[in-house]
Amino acid sequence: MKSMEKIVSLCKRRGFLFQSSEIYGGVQGFWDYGPLGVELKRNLKDAWWHDMISGHNELVQCDGAPSTHEMVGLDSTIIMHPQVWKCSGHYDLFHDHMVDCRESKKRYRFDQVRGRWCEHRDKKIFVSTLAEMEQEEAEVRRRAMKFFKLRPKNADELTVGSESLTLDKLDSTTDVLAPESKTLDTLTEPREFNLMFKTTLGALGGENDTTFLRPETAQGIFVNFKNVVDSSRVKIPFGIAQVGKSFRNEITPRNFTFRSREFEQMEIEFFCHPDESQKWYTYWRDRRLAWYKELGLSDELLIMREHHKEELAHYSVGTADIEYAFPFLPEGEYGELEGIAHRGDFDLRSHMEGKLDPSTDPMTVQLGENGKPKYKGSGRDLSYRDLETNEKFIPHVVEPSAGADRGALAFLCEAYTEDEAPDEKGNLQTRTVLKLHPRLAPIKAAIFPLVKKEGMPEIAKELYGELKQQMPAFYDEKGAVGKRYRRQDEVGTPYCITIDGDTLTDKTVTIRDRDTLEQTRVKIDDVVAEIQQRIS
Amino acid sequence: MKSMEKIVSLCKRRGFLFQSSEIYGGVQGFWDYGPLGVELKRNLKDAWWHDMISGHNELVQCDGAPSTHEMVGLDSTIIMHPQVWKCSGHYDLFHDHMVDCRESKKRYRFDQVRGRWCEHRDKKIFVSTLAEMEQEEAEVRRRAMKFFKLRPKNADELTVGSESLTLDKLDSTTDVLAPESKTLDTLTEPREFNLMFKTTLGALGGENDTTFLRPETAQGIFVNFKNVVDSSRVKIPFGIAQVGKSFRNEITPRNFTFRSREFEQMEIEFFCHPDESQKWYTYWRDRRLAWYKELGLSDELLIMREHHKEELAHYSVGTADIEYAFPFLPEGEYGELEGIAHRGDFDLRSHMEGKLDPSTDPMTVQLGENGKPKYKGSGRDLSYRDLETNEKFIPHVVEPSAGADRGALAFLCEAYTEDEAPDEKGNLQTRTVLKLHPRLAPIKAAIFPLVKKEGMPEIAKELYGELKQQMPAFYDEKGAVGKRYRRQDEVGTPYCITIDGDTLTDKTVTIRDRDTLEQTRVKIDDVVAEIQQRIS
Repeated sequence: MKSMEKIVSLCKRRGFLFQSSEIYGGVQGFWDYGPLGVELKRNLKDAWWHDMISGHNELVQCDGAPSTHEMVGLDSTIIMHPQVWKCSGHYDLFHDHMVDCRESKKRYRFDQVRGRWCEHRDKKIFVSTLAEMEQEEAEVRRRAMKFFKLRPKNADELTVGSESLTLDKLDSTTDVLAPESKTLDTLTEPREFNLMFKTTLGALGGENDTTFLRPETAQGIFVNFKNVVDSSRVKIPFGIAQVGKSFRNEITPRNFTFRSREFEQMEIEFFCHPDESQKWYTYWRDRRLAWYKELGLSDELLIMREHHKEELAHYSVGTADIEYAFPFLPEGEYGELEGIAHRGDFDLRSHMEGKLDPSTDPMTVQLGENGKPKYKGSGRDLSYRDLETNEKFIPHVVEPSAGADRGALAFLCEAYTEDEAPDEKGNLQTRTVLKLHPRLAPIKAAIFPLVKKEGMPEIAKELYGELKQQMPAFYDEKGAVGKRYRRQDEVGTPYCITIDGDTLTDKTVTIRDRDTLEQTRVKIDDVVAEIQQRIS
Repeated sequence: MKSMEKIVSLCKRRGFLFQSSEIYGGVQGFWDYGPLGVELKRNLKDAWWHDMISGHNELVQCDGAPSTHEMVGLDSTIIMHPQVWKCSGHYDLFHDHMVDCRESKKRYRFDQVRGRWCEHRDKKIFVSTLAEMEQEEAEVRRRAMKFFKLRPKNADELTVGSESLTLDKLDSTTDVLAPESKTLDTLTEPREFNLMFKTTLGALGGENDTTFLRPETAQGIFVNFKNVVDSSRVKIPFGIAQVGKSFRNEITPRNFTFRSREFEQMEIEFFCHPDESQKWYTYWRDRRLAWYKELGLSDELLIMREHHKEELAHYSVGTADIEYAFPFLPEGEYGELEGIAHRGDFDLRSHMEGKLDPSTDPMTVQLGENGKPKYKGSGRDLSYRDLETNEKFIPHVVEPSAGADRGALAFLCEAYTEDEAPDEKGNLQTRTVLKLHPRLAPIKAAIFPLVKKEGMPEIAKELYGELKQQMPAFYDEKGAVGKRYRRQDEVGTPYCITIDGDTLTDKTVTIRDRDTLEQTRVKIDDVVAEIQQRIS
């Protein structure tokens, strides 16, 4: 049986993931990738970079796309000018609310205690006790599933309606049981807490030198929009993509790498004509979902959750989350892998014009009657001129924003399998196997000389040398061959190649498939090409 | 003529590098990589990763290596436990001294004002006026070059002697002229300034939650040493490598991307038996220098600078810097690309045992007579047991530490060339060309249909689609073919493929070599394989 405990244990034992600074007791919300983990994550990021950017053919119209489009990459810094975060809205708005429990001394994220806070007759109330909550949650989930027809295979039917999902049925504000408390009414009022990590530039350390570690890579793209347009020959519609670290000072990091304080994003900002943004939104939503499936996440465990129309900013044509049923979540719950948001011209306009005190209307750039924003924008013209039609406009943006660590975790969870395979004597034994897509597998092929004699290691080593030039490979001559298979199964190596007695006479080797366990004999001279073809 | 000004201008114009947050006036010491720059830097990092780790064959003894060795990767977090930096020594020792000029209000890095501070009869003195300084500097440089025989081709002859390079000839402490001042004696006393960016973990923000952005990736490797040994089957000698961002709050960032506050490192910590550390030090020093040459840096512009014996910690067998004659430096000066340091067991021992107040002897772990370190180490046993000899020891470390941004900048500077090439009519014209190694070039091949008719674009687009699956390619059908060549030359595309009238009849295309300008006709069906072979 798949369980989070087993997956976490495998990750540590085989060198996929370690807790950061573990020898010093660890730091909550920070994780290091070990020798196999770093290869898995590199493969995931490289697959994304290839499929979205470097391998994208801008001369061909992709399935479902309204037209052809271009894609370029970018790599902006983690520390940027503090004004970026004032104009983006993060400085004023990117906070969580935290509550403390006076009894347990624990701290909780406001919206994640196992009850719900919500608006009720203009005040915030804590909705329910634990038992009531679970019932409520199941009901909400059921209604949401039904309402949004949240089956990925019915992506075309996704519609956004008007029914409210807010829990607004309870009246009491006093009957509150904190999650780890035994008496009622022990929680403090929620307090705001900005999620950006603060730091100081230069040696002086004055207020003007305070800046932040980026909480998203997206703003690095927006502030470079003009630079990219001016330096490359991209024409709208086009996308700018980047992969990089972001930081959020989460109050309660949890669920292994799922909610980390330091994490890596793979973000695209796709710039298009305002009239076409609905079509591009639909295209990206569907394309990104298909990408996860192509790399092996199963249909049954993925959902596309369209945000409720009333949750959207007025200009937005839609936002959808691609979510995965991670094994650490209760049955029927899903965790976000990627969000695809239509952001209108909000970001480019904010960086042009600046922002009023955003408490008035957080998601809208407003120039008040006095015309003076609280935060000055760059004053640069970030509009775009179409040289064919001569039309000038501020592009609309569709943003597919993926988490690389969440992706890696989802693929690990999906791949983790316990099945049965015959041992040396043909008896079925339980085995643990990571059924990773060959593109993602840290090691593509392992080479085993059956025995350490009769020249087998020499042949095996030569083949290993050839393979290693082309792909990550592993050489193993130790122990029973069954054990060697198991060691590779457990880390997801798709092909094991055995050099045996027959190799000496007919120059063939055995290639064993991790998933089907099928063994085929292949000429030793054809092995590299054969494996290359199978993994591509 | 090559000049830094032209290189910087090309980088901005063609989308290699932009100043971070440029629309808000920029942030000093932070640089963003544009569409072409991000590909160049990715190629450099991937080449390093392949050549040092994923493509390394641990069964074969490399040239000059004392034995075979293994290599694995790692990816640790930027934010770690604050104790890491206390035990590493960075918390107490990783600072610069800054001085302020009371007249110009400018701030300088102590050791970089255009004079020198040095020890003289137990006090710090400011050595010389500007004119005197330049003379002194030239003399020191001349002596250093002669003394260390700093020619890379004579790497075997590198020796370390005992002659002191300290400028200790001047007596006056009052006759000091600050660089941008007109009167004497305007500089303040030097003050210490820790170069680590500080930040706070979690919402409470107490003193215990203060931590730092890593100033080097190396410590992430040391604290994971045990995890890697336990989870993979590596045996000493082996290396752990990682690529990632580091941060240093430089007082005076300068020279384009050379001295940035946010930068990317490619570091290896190589663990070996203490008796073999001298040999491994020599091996890594020579291997890393050879790597830069293989990728195109020229012999004449590279030097290997061995540190003076007296500059080394007592346990160290050597430290060498690989330096490059960047065009922004005065004639005869070099800037560091990579340092190769023998670090003994200093780091692993520090993380085991902790540290005394390091002011006593900064580079040595000392357990005083009371046996109590000021900073508690992890208490974990970070020694290694050789299972064959049963010997237990703390490995010695050789650290080849490279800067990815400095590498990218060096390859850009090296590649920048102005030469002459014939235009459409055969007349020689000046052209700007980036002679980047094909592995590093952002675009590997460009495809030009000679004219936009007679079916040429269709053939070109089909070929483009095939190429794009395999490598970054560029399609261009606009303007005179000569102009198209120039645009590609300027960004370093090694091969341009032209589809012309003959293609329609004999199914061949022209491949033009960027550097030799040689044009060869190749069957269109063989183009992808031909280009793949040429760039690998």
